[in-house]
Amino acid sequence: MADGLIAFPKATISRFPLYFRVLTDYNHQDIALVSSEEMAQKIGVTSSQIRKDFSYFGSLGIRGAGYDVTYLLDMIKEILGMDKKRRLAVIGAGKLGMALAGYSGLKQHGLEVAALFDTDRRKWAQGPGGLTVFPLTELAEQKEKLGMEIAVLTVPAVVAQTVAELAVKSEFKAIWNFAPVRLKVPSNIIVQYEDLVVGILTLSHHLARKFG
Amino acid sequence: MADGLIAFPKATISRFPLYFRVLTDYNHQDIALVSSEEMAQKIGVTSSQIRKDFSYFGSLGIRGAGYDVTYLLDMIKEILGMDKKRRLAVIGAGKLGMALAGYSGLKQHGLEVAALFDTDRRKWAQGPGGLTVFPLTELAEQKEKLGMEIAVLTVPAVVAQTVAELAVKSEFKAIWNFAPVRLKVPSNIIVQYEDLVVGILTLSHHLARKFG
Repeated sequence: MADGLIAFPKATISRFPLYFRVLTDYNHQDIALVSSEEMAQKIGVTSSQIRKDFSYFGSLGIRGAGYDVTYLLDMIKEILGMDKKRRLAVIGAGKLGMALAGYSGLKQHGLEVAALFDTDRRKWAQGPGGLTVFPLTELAEQKEKLGMEIAVLTVPAVVAQTVAELAVKSEFKAIWNFAPVRLKVPSNIIVQYEDLVVGILTLSHHLARKFG
Repeated sequence: MADGLIAFPKATISRFPLYFRVLTDYNHQDIALVSSEEMAQKIGVTSSQIRKDFSYFGSLGIRGAGYDVTYLLDMIKEILGMDKKRRLAVIGAGKLGMALAGYSGLKQHGLEVAALFDTDRRKWAQGPGGLTVFPLTELAEQKEKLGMEIAVLTVPAVVAQTVAELAVKSEFKAIWNFAPVRLKVPSNIIVQYEDLVVGILTLSHHLARKFG
């Protein structure tokens, strides 16, 4: 089976949520076995790519008529750390912070926004879906109380570094950063950068090439 | 100079917004020349990677003491299609749609949300920043009127395919898709997928590897 210590390439990891979704669908339809060809058609990845990605799991999940849906689901959940529930603190209760806090895609993957934080007192206690927006000064205290591990930064770029340092001081292990700046944090902190502009600029690049 | 027809690898493209930001800063500070080492320190990319990326631009931008900031900015703007203003239609005026419509990072890169669309009449006319939310049935008409080229899909997964087909019928050239589904559209339509779950699951994977 997959060694929990394997570090998958980012491109491979990026396909796992797709696999997870389609396999969950099969599971709900009580389909026990699928071929890489069927999956390929559903998600727009070549069947050889799927076979290559699944080869990491060894031969246990392969049966005569295809891949074992339940086995693959378990493998992918484990690799993506979905067997553990993770709680998130969203720092910055602006539009993006609020959108993430209300985003159902997180819960489906074992991730839960437990609270929001903001320096603006007008935003305190106004969170979506029963969530509380706390003063940022309560970050460390609430982290302990609510058992949050991941700090989600949806703050303006100019304050992102300061907020990241506060998150580190509050003993968060990981930062999911939406602010368009590189953060300087100790190397044991896991940082994942999310820059919405990259996607649309990639699209814009292709548009310029194709249509001028 | 950079041939407008070069298709840069996605990983290279993903660094251009970073380069653009730091070069704009230098420009605002009236700094005319920068070394790859200075830039490397600022954005957390190795200097050899920067030199490799900039080698696409030929030798024109290189001067004795470093790279010509204005020249690089022009090149990057052209490659990313930022020399042309592009107008976006956000379809789905939920939290994410509203957040994108109010996102200042788009305007900084020559992209502008011109209108939002929704099937829910309660949302009509409630857009952020003076923007109008139109009935989805007016998509084709408003596309023409407002000169929009890119359809941004922030609709639920179950309706994404239908909405994509409507966008194609309304003659949008490109789709920026936030719904977690693969779209079936004609091959001349440019589709850029954005899946927020991929980033956080990558982080979760690293968290599971490191801390269990």
